[in-house]
Amino acid sequence: MIRVGVNGYGTIGKRVADAVTAQPDMELVGVTKTKPNYEAEAAIRRGYDLYAAIADRATEFEAAGVETAGTLSDLLEAVDVVVDCTPSGIGARNRSVYAAHDTPAIFQGGEDADVADASFNARTSFEAARGADTLRVVSCNTTGLARLLAPLDEAYGVEKARVTLVRRGGDPSETGRGPINDVVPDPTTVPSHHGPDVNTVLPGVAVDTAALKVPVTAMHTHSVNVTLRQAPTTEAVRDLLADESRIFTIPEAAGIDGAGKLKEYAMDRGRPRGDLWENCVWEESINVSGRDLYLFENVHQEADVVPENVDAIRALTTDLSASESVERTNEALGVGLESLLSSGDDARDPITADD
Amino acid sequence: MIRVGVNGYGTIGKRVADAVTAQPDMELVGVTKTKPNYEAEAAIRRGYDLYAAIADRATEFEAAGVETAGTLSDLLEAVDVVVDCTPSGIGARNRSVYAAHDTPAIFQGGEDADVADASFNARTSFEAARGADTLRVVSCNTTGLARLLAPLDEAYGVEKARVTLVRRGGDPSETGRGPINDVVPDPTTVPSHHGPDVNTVLPGVAVDTAALKVPVTAMHTHSVNVTLRQAPTTEAVRDLLADESRIFTIPEAAGIDGAGKLKEYAMDRGRPRGDLWENCVWEESINVSGRDLYLFENVHQEADVVPENVDAIRALTTDLSASESVERTNEALGVGLESLLSSGDDARDPITADD
Repeated sequence: MIRVGVNGYGTIGKRVADAVTAQPDMELVGVTKTKPNYEAEAAIRRGYDLYAAIADRATEFEAAGVETAGTLSDLLEAVDVVVDCTPSGIGARNRSVYAAHDTPAIFQGGEDADVADASFNARTSFEAARGADTLRVVSCNTTGLARLLAPLDEAYGVEKARVTLVRRGGDPSETGRGPINDVVPDPTTVPSHHGPDVNTVLPGVAVDTAALKVPVTAMHTHSVNVTLRQAPTTEAVRDLLADESRIFTIPEAAGIDGAGKLKEYAMDRGRPRGDLWENCVWEESINVSGRDLYLFENVHQEADVVPENVDAIRALTTDLSASESVERTNEALGVGLESLLSSGDDARDPITADD
Repeated sequence: MIRVGVNGYGTIGKRVADAVTAQPDMELVGVTKTKPNYEAEAAIRRGYDLYAAIADRATEFEAAGVETAGTLSDLLEAVDVVVDCTPSGIGARNRSVYAAHDTPAIFQGGEDADVADASFNARTSFEAARGADTLRVVSCNTTGLARLLAPLDEAYGVEKARVTLVRRGGDPSETGRGPINDVVPDPTTVPSHHGPDVNTVLPGVAVDTAALKVPVTAMHTHSVNVTLRQAPTTEAVRDLLADESRIFTIPEAAGIDGAGKLKEYAMDRGRPRGDLWENCVWEESINVSGRDLYLFENVHQEADVVPENVDAIRALTTDLSASESVERTNEALGVGLESLLSSGDDARDPITADD
C-alpha cells in the first residue's frame, strides 16, 4: 500500500483525498488544514485524520473542538508521498519542508514548472516522470489541452493549435474572486503561458493560447482550432476523441447547452460533488474544414486534475505502466463518462434500464 | 406501499422521484418526460420506468433509442397518487387529466392556490390537508417562511413579519433566465404575493414581503425582521430554531460566507446533488433588539420542497400524523443537518471521526 498524505484539504485536496481513498493500492494517512472550518469538519466526518498545517496554529483546532492527529511534520514522517494541494505559491514554499523530511512530493499546476523535477500528465508524460523525486501535475487547463492534443498529434499530426481559453473567474466557494461583470484578458499578453505549459508535458506540439476571465464559476471553456497535417473527416475525429477514456463527447441529443446542464448531468449520474474528471467536448462543435479542426470543450477546474494526481502518485512510487495506472484509476473512480444517447450513425436498439 | 407517479422529471421531479424511492412505505411506479434528453437518460440509468408525458411525442423517444413504458395515461392508471412537477402553469392544465383518471394529485407552488383543495406545508398544515383529493405544496420561498415563522409564532407570538426575498434569477441549468447583471424588483408592487401565500399554510400570522431577482443561481436569500409579542433573548431564538429539524443554523465557526460555500458544505456532507432540504439560517445573523428579531436565511430552491412533497403524499393517502410522517421522511432522506462545529456556550470535548 502506498501511504499518501494530502497537504491542504481545500478544493483540490478534498477531491484528491477521496480519490486516493478509492484506490485499492493506496492508503490515505491524513490531510492537513490551516484552520478548523467547515472543510476540517468534512475531513473528520469522512474519517480522515486531520493534521495542523501550521504548527503554531494547532491550538485553534482544539479551541474549536476539533481533534488533530498532529502537525504537518508528523504527517510527512508517516507517508511515502505527499500531495501538495495548497494555494498557488505556497507549494514552492513547502518544497524545502518536504525535502527536509525526504518525502517525495507532488505539486499542483499553480506552481512554476521548476518547483519539481518534472511536470506530469498521465496521457502524455507518465514515463518521463520515472525516477523523479518530485512531480508537478499541470493545471486544469493544461491538462485538458494535453489530453486533447496528444491523440490528435498521434493520429494526424498537429501543425499548429490555437486555443482561446475562456476561464471561470473563481470556484463556486471563492466569494472574493472576480470579475463580477466583465471579460478580462488574463494575461493581456498573447500568447499566454498556457501553450508553453502544455509543452512541459507534450513537447514539440505547436500551440498558441490566449486567455480571458469571465464571471462564471462552474467550468472553463476552450475554443479550439487545430491545423492538422492530414485532413481527417469530422466523423473520424469524433470517434478518435470518443475513444479517449478521459474525454467525454457530449451528444447533441442530450440537450446540454452549457456548464449548468453539464454539471446537472454529472449530478444526475451520481458523480460526487458533480465532478467531471473528463474533458467535455460538444459533439456537434467538432468540425473539420480542410485541415482545420474546430471544437468547443469544457474543463472542470475542480476535478480534471484529480485522476492525474492519482496517476502521479504511482509514477513516483511504483513501476506500473501508464496504461495500467490509468486503467486502475479510472476503474476505482468511475472515470470514462459515456452517454446512452450518444448519436452514432448506426441503428441501435432502444436503451433500457439494464444497459 | 403507496404507488407514486411523478409527472415531469425536471429539477423538482427528479428529486421527488429519488425521495419517494428512499421511503420505506412508497413505491415509485414511474416518471414522465416530454422529450428524450439528458434527464430522460438519467431516469433510465436510475432504473425508473419512463413514460411519455405527451402521447403525440412518444415516437421521439423511440427515435432517440430510449425505451418508454407507456404514456402519462398509463402511468395515472397505475398509481395511487401523482406528483405534478411540471413547469408553472402546466399543472393547472393537467388538473382535469388527473381528475379524469380519479388520481389524487399534488401540485407545486408555481400554481395558483386554487389549483388544489388545500395548500400544504408539513410543519404548519398537515392536518388541514386531511380529506383533500388534491394538494399544492407551497413554493420554496413560502415553505422557508412557514418553517421559520411557525415556531416563532408558537413560542413568542408574531406581531408582524417583514421579509425581503432576494431571489435567485434561475436554476443552474436554466440558461435562458436573467437577469445577467441587475437587481430586478419582482414583482415591483410591494408587498409581494409571498406573504398571502404564507397565509395559505399559516393563517393568522401577519407577514409582508418584498421580492427582488438577482443574477445568482444557487439559492434564495431572505432578509428577515419579525416583531415578536414577547422579547426573548438572542440565545433563546437560536436554540428554538436549532431544534427545528428542517432548519439548519450555520455555525459562525464554519467560515461559510455565502451560498457557494454552503453548497460546498452540502457536497462535503455527501448530500445528493448538494441538496439543502433545510432552511439555512446564519447563526451570527440572529439578533434580537427589543421585540425585533433579525436574521438572514438561505433557501435552496431546488430542494427545500422535496421532503414536503413526500409528506404531502402521506397526508393524501394515509392516516399517519404529521410528526410521524416528518420523522419518517427525515430519517429516510437524512434531513436534519447539524454541524459538529456548532458553537454552543457549553464546554465540549474535542470531536472525533466517531462523533
